[in-house]
Amino acid sequence: MADTPIDFRTTPDRYRHWKLALENGVAYLTMDVNEDGGLRPGYKLKLNSYDLGVDIELADAVQRLRFEHPEIGAVVIRSQRDRIFCSGANINMLGLSTHVHKVNFCKFTNETRLAIEDASTNSGQTYICSINGIAAGGGYELALACEQILLADDGSSAVSLPELPLLAVLPGTGGLTRLVDKRMVRRDHADFFCTTAEGMRGKRARDWRLVDRLIAPSKLAEETRKIAEEMAGKSSRPRQAKGIALTPIERVIDGDTIRYPHLTIELDRERRAARFRLTGPTDAPPADAAAIHAQGAAFWPLALAREIDDAMMHLRLNETEIGTWVLQSQGDGALVEAYDALLERESSNWLVREIVLFWKRTLKRLDVSSRSLIALVEPGSCFAGTLFELVLAADRSYMLDGVFEGSNLPAATIRLTPMNFGPYPMGNGLTRLAARFLAEPSHVDELKDEIGRSIEAEDADDLGLVTFTPDDIDWEDEVRLAVEERAGFSPDGLIGMEANLRFAGPETMETKIFARLTAWQNWIFQRPNATGPEGALKLYGTGKQSKYDRTRA
Amino acid sequence: MADTPIDFRTTPDRYRHWKLALENGVAYLTMDVNEDGGLRPGYKLKLNSYDLGVDIELADAVQRLRFEHPEIGAVVIRSQRDRIFCSGANINMLGLSTHVHKVNFCKFTNETRLAIEDASTNSGQTYICSINGIAAGGGYELALACEQILLADDGSSAVSLPELPLLAVLPGTGGLTRLVDKRMVRRDHADFFCTTAEGMRGKRARDWRLVDRLIAPSKLAEETRKIAEEMAGKSSRPRQAKGIALTPIERVIDGDTIRYPHLTIELDRERRAARFRLTGPTDAPPADAAAIHAQGAAFWPLALAREIDDAMMHLRLNETEIGTWVLQSQGDGALVEAYDALLERESSNWLVREIVLFWKRTLKRLDVSSRSLIALVEPGSCFAGTLFELVLAADRSYMLDGVFEGSNLPAATIRLTPMNFGPYPMGNGLTRLAARFLAEPSHVDELKDEIGRSIEAEDADDLGLVTFTPDDIDWEDEVRLAVEERAGFSPDGLIGMEANLRFAGPETMETKIFARLTAWQNWIFQRPNATGPEGALKLYGTGKQSKYDRTRA
Repeated sequence: MADTPIDFRTTPDRYRHWKLALENGVAYLTMDVNEDGGLRPGYKLKLNSYDLGVDIELADAVQRLRFEHPEIGAVVIRSQRDRIFCSGANINMLGLSTHVHKVNFCKFTNETRLAIEDASTNSGQTYICSINGIAAGGGYELALACEQILLADDGSSAVSLPELPLLAVLPGTGGLTRLVDKRMVRRDHADFFCTTAEGMRGKRARDWRLVDRLIAPSKLAEETRKIAEEMAGKSSRPRQAKGIALTPIERVIDGDTIRYPHLTIELDRERRAARFRLTGPTDAPPADAAAIHAQGAAFWPLALAREIDDAMMHLRLNETEIGTWVLQSQGDGALVEAYDALLERESSNWLVREIVLFWKRTLKRLDVSSRSLIALVEPGSCFAGTLFELVLAADRSYMLDGVFEGSNLPAATIRLTPMNFGPYPMGNGLTRLAARFLAEPSHVDELKDEIGRSIEAEDADDLGLVTFTPDDIDWEDEVRLAVEERAGFSPDGLIGMEANLRFAGPETMETKIFARLTAWQNWIFQRPNATGPEGALKLYGTGKQSKYDRTRA
Repeated sequence: MADTPIDFRTTPDRYRHWKLALENGVAYLTMDVNEDGGLRPGYKLKLNSYDLGVDIELADAVQRLRFEHPEIGAVVIRSQRDRIFCSGANINMLGLSTHVHKVNFCKFTNETRLAIEDASTNSGQTYICSINGIAAGGGYELALACEQILLADDGSSAVSLPELPLLAVLPGTGGLTRLVDKRMVRRDHADFFCTTAEGMRGKRARDWRLVDRLIAPSKLAEETRKIAEEMAGKSSRPRQAKGIALTPIERVIDGDTIRYPHLTIELDRERRAARFRLTGPTDAPPADAAAIHAQGAAFWPLALAREIDDAMMHLRLNETEIGTWVLQSQGDGALVEAYDALLERESSNWLVREIVLFWKRTLKRLDVSSRSLIALVEPGSCFAGTLFELVLAADRSYMLDGVFEGSNLPAATIRLTPMNFGPYPMGNGLTRLAARFLAEPSHVDELKDEIGRSIEAEDADDLGLVTFTPDDIDWEDEVRLAVEERAGFSPDGLIGMEANLRFAGPETMETKIFARLTAWQNWIFQRPNATGPEGALKLYGTGKQSKYDRTRA
């Protein structure tokens, strides 16, 4: 599945599977999947089933609505089709995909759903799912990501999670977890529901908390509109504001170099590593929110976040053998700090709020990327505040103690800003500092005294902010060794290890989905009962019966 | 690996791998694994490595110390060997084992570690690990289960988790989670530690929180003794009390029937189901704690818990194709309630505390058993209080509404007792009632008003205490269908689904290990990089280098 690279950049005028309409403060995202519009040949996207391409468009729409449409306070997800809302991930596509593609596809799809939930919770854009027909598997999982689920009460419209009975896999992209943790469906009801291929409809679906409202089919469109407009009316978004255009992300792939305006990535295929080199701002930040608005997508923090986000998706899906991401930066830490100060000062502005929330999501995407993350803090780098979160997100960090011989760059420093103490929680609800210092929460408070100070290696080490601080004699060897060592380990083992070590402390619906449900699903996807020659996923639609290995592990 | 059945029943005089000595309120559990004492042929238990047989003895010792030795307030785990504490799970054994055996072995091992932690936290028996030599992999995981880890400061004694670098799997029996969640080791330190095959020793091991104290090798034995005796001195256990003997569990396996004094299990191989028929008490409970003590292991709640526990282990390891456990009971609910009242009244007594804690652990073992659980509440059953927890633990429950035609048994009832509201939390810290009614916590309070009432099917349904309440016309078909349907599904899918639906709500170290770390480990155990013909686990010790598939899922 890695023939031509998958491109995550799109625009509404190029959507093949979704229609976006705006009216009275409400956006209508209407699913109408083009059967022949699959990302890869070999399968037809029948019955509003989806592949990664369909979800790339949805993710784009969710993102654009936030930045381009401050006037939109509610979003309706619905289907163009009669009798079918969405039948979930396309089974033939799954059958043709590599394990790696399947896992990455599920992860991205769940990130889109989390972005939907983030919009409802934090951005004043509440998602409503209006179901006319069957919402099966991933189709119902998409509904579960919305704040409200409306179901036509027509005796046939239904919600279902038929993965287990039909395909021998799980509703593993959040389905099970959202069912019992978000909607708090009783576990015995969930058990019955998830083993009933045809799903549930009508009163039982509502009584069991699977949907929020039943609506007569003739009134569904009208009631949906009314509910959405009412929600939009209560939104905190500024109805009169104008959005900014998310202009195309400029990217040039030149052999093993990927160039964005503020980010260059060099692939070292021998060491299976990608070096991210981020560039800090070159000028002082604009004066205020209005000036940020005038810069639009060119505003440095927004531009950089979009580039990092696109780069991560590109590398995840298209460079699956590049197992280590080395994070480096170049620029002036004082300027980064000044941008952070601006973001903090203007935090009540809708656009600034969106930019900060987007950084939060981008950093979370990094946290759940199945790549080893190594941060290098060198002279000339600018890991301050928001950018220092990248160092904290890394599995380990190296900071040069002193200067490089023959270089006139002063010693490397890092800086903390207030942005390290709240706005960018991880999926588990903790800041990266709080997660790092789980054993000594008071240390996080003490670190607040360090805000704004240029911290050199020795102090950074004392404060526990970096892992290792070699001097220039050891630097090259130590860093090379770390990267090469990583390349020698089993990727599977590393994925599991990193997913476990990164998220100490509390769990949330979000971390449960990534770190628990996904792990089970990955396991099940590997088991012959699902993907073996006689597995349910392979035989689906052939009329043949799977023969299961009956042992219970 | 399922040739002769594995028997979990043992006694100290039959131990082959551990020595148990008692002195001054301290128990010394000394590991001295018999190389030739493997549970199965084909591998040698070199270097104090272990297989399931070694852990069965440890689990037995942990259990006996609690019941048979109220005078013991601290337990020291140490090694008989010079230079080696324990080298973890035996690799050759893992290489020879089926996936199912490996997973079940890891689960049991972790349950033993949880029992150790439960003893330290709740039973006044604090575990101290005294490490002289190398504690590698599962050896260090065992240490992590202890409250204190003492390490000889001799320049060579070390702790390590070399699974990832050497074997391409995880320290998956709690290692990673206990590291960052229990000991709260900083995540970048944990990353370095888990990728360093030789592990850590001396000052760094202590500074990084991997061990608690460094002790000069010549003083290790003496210091360990001092620390343990000091702990024992602070224990809440009654030094002067006498323990009770955990007499052998009587079990007869007769074809497809397994008979214990208070529990009969019938295997229905066609439907891949085991019917558990528990028997309630036949007499009124004894008067007080002294009378309980006099009954000893024959005291009905203790006897039944031991039988259920043994049965679960037997079925898990020896009957791996029996995928559904059907839970039934027979007896007088009022008598069960009377026993619960006694347990509550005498809860401050050390023995009663142990019995209640043992029920807690037994119910938790049921929660994490990879079997579908279906409870049947019929006329003549006695699901009250403690026994009603089995119904709450089930994935779903059926309760007959009314009576069976031609039977003179009155309608089935269930009863709540105070034991349903606190003493038996699940691994996630919630009572089963609280987990069930996550969406309406106030309902749990309302249910307290129902304590002691005989609740018939219609009310049980209204109160949300059972899943389905068919009448006698539908009963047989509905129950049969449920069991048969379960037998038709993929076992893997069911395992993942049940593990996710059973534990809504908060996560703890315990649920993280079972539901997240184990899932990753299961996945990794299936991947060719670990267990394929060129996988690290297969090639370990051959001198050959694994060839890894480098893609990142």
